[in-house]
Amino acid sequence: MKYEDFLVTSLGKGGVISPLKKNQRADSPVYKFVNDSERILYDVSLENFNRCKESGEIPVSFEKAGPRETIYFEPAKTKVGIITCGGLCPGLNNVIRSLVNELYYRYGISRILGIKYGFEGLIPKYNHSVIELTTTMVSNIHLTGGTFLGSSRGDQDVEKMVDTLEIMNINLLFCIGGDGTLRGAHDIHKEIEKRKIKICVAGIPKTIDNDIDLIQKSFGFETAFSIANDIIRNAHNEAEGAFNGIALIKLMGRDSGFIAASAALSIQEVNFVLIPEITFDLYGQRGFLRVLKKRLEERHHAVIVVAEGAGQEFFEAAVNDKDASGNIRHKDIGVYLKDKISEEYKNKNFPHSIKYIDPSYIIRSAPANANDSKFCNLLAQNAVHAALAGKTDFVVGFWNNHFTLMPIPMVVAKRKKIDVDGELWWNVLEATGQPITMKNP
Amino acid sequence: MKYEDFLVTSLGKGGVISPLKKNQRADSPVYKFVNDSERILYDVSLENFNRCKESGEIPVSFEKAGPRETIYFEPAKTKVGIITCGGLCPGLNNVIRSLVNELYYRYGISRILGIKYGFEGLIPKYNHSVIELTTTMVSNIHLTGGTFLGSSRGDQDVEKMVDTLEIMNINLLFCIGGDGTLRGAHDIHKEIEKRKIKICVAGIPKTIDNDIDLIQKSFGFETAFSIANDIIRNAHNEAEGAFNGIALIKLMGRDSGFIAASAALSIQEVNFVLIPEITFDLYGQRGFLRVLKKRLEERHHAVIVVAEGAGQEFFEAAVNDKDASGNIRHKDIGVYLKDKISEEYKNKNFPHSIKYIDPSYIIRSAPANANDSKFCNLLAQNAVHAALAGKTDFVVGFWNNHFTLMPIPMVVAKRKKIDVDGELWWNVLEATGQPITMKNP
Amino acid sequence: MKYEDFLVTSLGKGGVISPLKKNQRADSPVYKFVNDSERILYDVSLENFNRCKESGEIPVSFEKAGPRETIYFEPAKTKVGIITCGGLCPGLNNVIRSLVNELYYRYGISRILGIKYGFEGLIPKYNHSVIELTTTMVSNIHLTGGTFLGSSRGDQDVEKMVDTLEIMNINLLFCIGGDGTLRGAHDIHKEIEKRKIKICVAGIPKTIDNDIDLIQKSFGFETAFSIANDIIRNAHNEAEGAFNGIALIKLMGRDSGFIAASAALSIQEVNFVLIPEITFDLYGQRGFLRVLKKRLEERHHAVIVVAEGAGQEFFEAAVNDKDASGNIRHKDIGVYLKDKISEEYKNKNFPHSIKYIDPSYIIRSAPANANDSKFCNLLAQNAVHAALAGKTDFVVGFWNNHFTLMPIPMVVAKRKKIDVDGELWWNVLEATGQPITMKNP
Amino acid sequence: MKYEDFLVTSLGKGGVISPLKKNQRADSPVYKFVNDSERILYDVSLENFNRCKESGEIPVSFEKAGPRETIYFEPAKTKVGIITCGGLCPGLNNVIRSLVNELYYRYGISRILGIKYGFEGLIPKYNHSVIELTTTMVSNIHLTGGTFLGSSRGDQDVEKMVDTLEIMNINLLFCIGGDGTLRGAHDIHKEIEKRKIKICVAGIPKTIDNDIDLIQKSFGFETAFSIANDIIRNAHNEAEGAFNGIALIKLMGRDSGFIAASAALSIQEVNFVLIPEITFDLYGQRGFLRVLKKRLEERHHAVIVVAEGAGQEFFEAAVNDKDASGNIRHKDIGVYLKDKISEEYKNKNFPHSIKYIDPSYIIRSAPANANDSKFCNLLAQNAVHAALAGKTDFVVGFWNNHFTLMPIPMVVAKRKKIDVDGELWWNVLEATGQPITMKNP
Repeated sequence: MKYEDFLVTSLGKGGVISPLKKNQRADSPVYKFVNDSERILYDVSLENFNRCKESGEIPVSFEKAGPRETIYFEPAKTKVGIITCGGLCPGLNNVIRSLVNELYYRYGISRILGIKYGFEGLIPKYNHSVIELTTTMVSNIHLTGGTFLGSSRGDQDVEKMVDTLEIMNINLLFCIGGDGTLRGAHDIHKEIEKRKIKICVAGIPKTIDNDIDLIQKSFGFETAFSIANDIIRNAHNEAEGAFNGIALIKLMGRDSGFIAASAALSIQEVNFVLIPEITFDLYGQRGFLRVLKKRLEERHHAVIVVAEGAGQEFFEAAVNDKDASGNIRHKDIGVYLKDKISEEYKNKNFPHSIKYIDPSYIIRSAPANANDSKFCNLLAQNAVHAALAGKTDFVVGFWNNHFTLMPIPMVVAKRKKIDVDGELWWNVLEATGQPITMKNP
Repeated sequence: MKYEDFLVTSLGKGGVISPLKKNQRADSPVYKFVNDSERILYDVSLENFNRCKESGEIPVSFEKAGPRETIYFEPAKTKVGIITCGGLCPGLNNVIRSLVNELYYRYGISRILGIKYGFEGLIPKYNHSVIELTTTMVSNIHLTGGTFLGSSRGDQDVEKMVDTLEIMNINLLFCIGGDGTLRGAHDIHKEIEKRKIKICVAGIPKTIDNDIDLIQKSFGFETAFSIANDIIRNAHNEAEGAFNGIALIKLMGRDSGFIAASAALSIQEVNFVLIPEITFDLYGQRGFLRVLKKRLEERHHAVIVVAEGAGQEFFEAAVNDKDASGNIRHKDIGVYLKDKISEEYKNKNFPHSIKYIDPSYIIRSAPANANDSKFCNLLAQNAVHAALAGKTDFVVGFWNNHFTLMPIPMVVAKRKKIDVDGELWWNVLEATGQPITMKNP
Repeated sequence: MKYEDFLVTSLGKGGVISPLKKNQRADSPVYKFVNDSERILYDVSLENFNRCKESGEIPVSFEKAGPRETIYFEPAKTKVGIITCGGLCPGLNNVIRSLVNELYYRYGISRILGIKYGFEGLIPKYNHSVIELTTTMVSNIHLTGGTFLGSSRGDQDVEKMVDTLEIMNINLLFCIGGDGTLRGAHDIHKEIEKRKIKICVAGIPKTIDNDIDLIQKSFGFETAFSIANDIIRNAHNEAEGAFNGIALIKLMGRDSGFIAASAALSIQEVNFVLIPEITFDLYGQRGFLRVLKKRLEERHHAVIVVAEGAGQEFFEAAVNDKDASGNIRHKDIGVYLKDKISEEYKNKNFPHSIKYIDPSYIIRSAPANANDSKFCNLLAQNAVHAALAGKTDFVVGFWNNHFTLMPIPMVVAKRKKIDVDGELWWNVLEATGQPITMKNP
Repeated sequence: MKYEDFLVTSLGKGGVISPLKKNQRADSPVYKFVNDSERILYDVSLENFNRCKESGEIPVSFEKAGPRETIYFEPAKTKVGIITCGGLCPGLNNVIRSLVNELYYRYGISRILGIKYGFEGLIPKYNHSVIELTTTMVSNIHLTGGTFLGSSRGDQDVEKMVDTLEIMNINLLFCIGGDGTLRGAHDIHKEIEKRKIKICVAGIPKTIDNDIDLIQKSFGFETAFSIANDIIRNAHNEAEGAFNGIALIKLMGRDSGFIAASAALSIQEVNFVLIPEITFDLYGQRGFLRVLKKRLEERHHAVIVVAEGAGQEFFEAAVNDKDASGNIRHKDIGVYLKDKISEEYKNKNFPHSIKYIDPSYIIRSAPANANDSKFCNLLAQNAVHAALAGKTDFVVGFWNNHFTLMPIPMVVAKRKKIDVDGELWWNVLEATGQPITMKNP
């Protein structure tokens, strides 16, 4: 990673005085607007400071988000589109609501269109209607989970989508979605560049798994592991309620175990956390089934949390088995584990009782908790500030407790994963007491 | 049903002054102890009054529960066993806690044994330990769901169980469980009678499905449909979040649809409630799949609640497929419906998105809500009052807002079901707008 | 009370076939419509049955609510007004929403007016706007507490209100409110009778205190004591967190202690419940302050729940001090007790720490829980059935688990109170262990 | 602030191999233990990097917390004391529980004493008992709020406290508390130094207000504003439920408005946030009462959040009025505002309705939410790592998402406050729409 990689594209120098500036009264405190040159360090260790100082290297850093004194788009002539893509995630409605409120109340923009059902809504053949969003219309949407705009998975024809944007005279497009969506947004930006038109594309990263790279936390993630925390608490009752009772909970996490790990760290009642980052054996001396049996013999109950992407090595690679978003469709490790445990212990005549819980949709469809709500509101406000200032092909991130702006390609280059030699996973091992490895030598 | 059927068996006339009486101070208000002759009418219609008056028939009625002035067992010499059987149900720990508190604080009984893992705990070969219960030990158990004593399913050898009771010198046995458990308790009572020993067997009815006959409501039922209510609220977001989105929630209800119906009446967002009491067709003019498609075409989303015992007619009868409690093991109607909907609409090229939610264990393992907690406490107190008074082979019921006592055989004779011509189901039809029948002619 | 007192007034025999009847398909199950002669017994004891049988007396009973086969008002020509009065209560929005849904979807009535801010909304000088209610408008209002229509306290000029009803051509007026509101509704009915116009006045009883006479439970009451339950659970932590810690919680209950008693029965952690029905002394041998001190010396913490109407005898009667609804404005017993405890123990040099909690508005403004939501929905439906059938000057009640209809004057004649010699209070004494009396001899 | 200020005191170089090291199996991944030289930058801006690079200044930075490879105390010979002081805060029990679990399971320390009722527990005359803490005893304490150990406010005689530590042979003392407690801990450390004994004093910062300097977030703070969020949501219903309805909520915040600001940012329904950092006038052209009236005239309802320390300038300075902890006892701004609003609008004949809500104890006594629970667990683990490594007179902090160690004197030098020209307050102004100033010129 180099400093240069993280310079955000801009449509041009803004010449319009921001309404935020104009609304400041003469006698009011002077708010410090943010400069384009303000940046947040990626690495906050003193060691890195010393290293960069010695080598003369400019340290990797991210542009600071926040309101600019002058902006690029003239509010009265600006038209906005908002789109939500992919699976549900707590906070989507908070983001939509805050985008609309910020655009309307702070920047005076009243032409705001809600595109329905994700990228499908930009493709004529689906014939989805468009919603003219008002602050009244969105005033209570954050009380419920889901997305007010509807969503869909999968790519759509980029040229057709840009045609629609042109026909609708949209100047700013806010795309709320995950990896795939952000890649789609980047492609839209490329097409816009090719056509030499002035449309800004802003990405608002959405990943319930919290696995978008270079982003400290994504909205909905905390709500997700908080609900998981409560579900595991009760699942623990199921485990203890039977002799050699096993509660097996499958949580989200296609490629990373952040939700599983965080839930285990908050509830502190989980005995095994299985994540995509670490392969394990079922059978043999060190295999999971034997380790689990030992735990049951000692304590007569066990709580297991498995991330949905764990143990995929047990299934034959099925390269073409992808969902509409292009994600590899994972075999169900939860059901697989449940069956294998039952089979093995039945064969061994080992009395046990297993309860399998898959709360995925219950979690995804919940409304955001208070902290996520606050985060969504600020995230949306910063997306609006940046887009109005003419930034494009960017995502709003969060790093070292500051909102940041980054080029889309940098955050979708790879997925964030748990460092299995690092602090987070070490804490999980401490909390669960599970073996460091369940691989046979 | 006849008046005579509902006379509760008694070990004999109590000659001991109740500690509740002794503790009344001379200057305190005189509490009205309950007489054995006090009874609560089964049918509260004026019509039935007139009918009985004319015919001279003694109306069917249930013995009123409550503290008796004289009791049968001498507290200082009494030893108590408590047992929980079958699946989890919110409130089990409240019942255990209140039994212990009432026995200790009100009646001064300190020898209270917790039998572990249901009827298994009375069978030597399982070698489960016994817990000496104290008020300190149980003081916080109601904060969590599950059962502090553990549970198991299935019958055990009655003679061996009564041998254990004799060896442990237990005088009162409180059995908390469903149909099967209550039948087991009755068998234990029969064996006790045969041996001419003085052990009272008290049944505390547990059914999350609320389907024990002649009992207005069972503990945990309200908590169950309340949690279902919240889950459906969010599932509704899943349905609305996709074009032709379908949320399919499977709820408890092996033989009756009370949870499904009550959840639909509280949330008022359900479009279809499928229950065991009503058969339906999948295909054809009036079949469910066509009706659902029509709904989707009109509103582009749908919420379906299916009780686990619905649609069993779709599976070939598998008479021998019973779980350890002897319940017929039901094929999974939720998964079946999900597959059939997907298959049919894929074949018809009808775009849709289906999310399947099975919150069963999440609901069963939750702690009781406030109203259920109150109910559990009073239920347990009334069980103690009756047992101390020498009643046996009885269950504590609840009817017309009074706690009642009934012979075990009367409540397990058949299961309570929704009257599909009656008010409750009519209200569900009003709330959902679903067709009265989804059977083809 | 006599049988005759409970005959509900009717505008006349209904000649219109109910749309519910018309919508029944030929092949559907035959729903049993309710007859005006169906009645629910007031007293469900076998003893009362025998007494009435012997004396020949017709037992007191209430008309059964439910849909009638023929109705009085022709839906297409009917215009409805809905009004909410008095303090907030969980469930108001559920009732409003279900009235609108039932009127529209079941009876086909589309002209439904929401009167704003209670009876004020019927008085021209306040100039409050009127809302034309639609099912879309009310579809999400039950997610929040409060009242969508706004409310106000106090009487208004009856003639002016009826003038407004006439001018607006309202045929059915649904008044949701407490004692005072129902009396107001009765006065409106009287004026309507005088003018010989055909307007039906339906009362939907609202009392968070659950103290309307002859009604088993009122909406919002369960939600109220459920929230109180959670607050007391945490208050208990405050008590235990300090040496001789005292948590003092004031709950609703102007004239009765139902919320305080029910909360104590559900949480089972309260040591003292003080209610309006029982006077007590502060000082002296048996006085509360001494009893509390003894508890603290033994256990070093205490939890006290006081109903707002308790201990009013400590204040000098201030006959003219009434709020806008005409309720006597109570001195604040919570603050008074807190001050007296502090004063006394400071004087006695008795170390202690007191935390005072007044959650009144937090509870009143909350949304209804699932069971209350279900209850509100059914209550509203039954109000609509009765009003359409031409009943007037009535309230919808609930007794022995059936919805009932009663003349307004019968339910406002007196307030329901806790029978201090009865089962409920006995249970509270058992749960708290508090002395039966805290009056000095 | 200088680099040198932030060097943590150590009892000496540790010579004991950490049990965490010994338990690592030969084949396990190598966990990176933390070195004493690892540090986290205070300022993460690129600007500061450049400034320090140029000036040659070592940037201010904090020691990184985490397990050390060698430790100072030999676990088998180590005895630990845990103490909680000051007011309740969500998460206290999580911290206690995790301290015990980490000490026992990771470091093998079994002699852990719970000191009761804060510093009082170290003073013989109070005669409070000591609790020998075990992992079983604390296994469920995190399910409830409060503190398992009890607490008290105020200083105690330092020499007597250290006498007690010596008599009890305590080697590590964990003090969980706020400013005052940490100062007390520092004094204990000073006395220990004077006596040349080897006792480590570890501070775990507790402030529900989140106002301890140099600490990004303190445990319980998120739970606090989350509960406030829910209470404000319902208070909003109270405001809307009456004509010109005003909901006035007083939240915690003696010297800073972080809770009030965060709650307003999460709920987005607050119209006025009043905090200690900003003075305001009540009367006059720009005064709060006039601004509020204007809002009511426009929208007919208003929600006000006031931090308890706001508006203290309205009260005459009462220098000697301090509570047992030495905090200035604030006059109640909530009640004051309520009275002033009522008075003014009554005088002006302006119809209104005001509801005042003080949820302080409800919030303080609640259990920690999931994210706070996770945070408490990691905080306690890091405190144990540092104390075992021989660090003393330190607090565990959190900065730029890393746990840090800092000398106690540095964090209690001053309180953290909201920067009223900065981003957080700007966001609040955007969210509320309130004027930047309510001071008359």
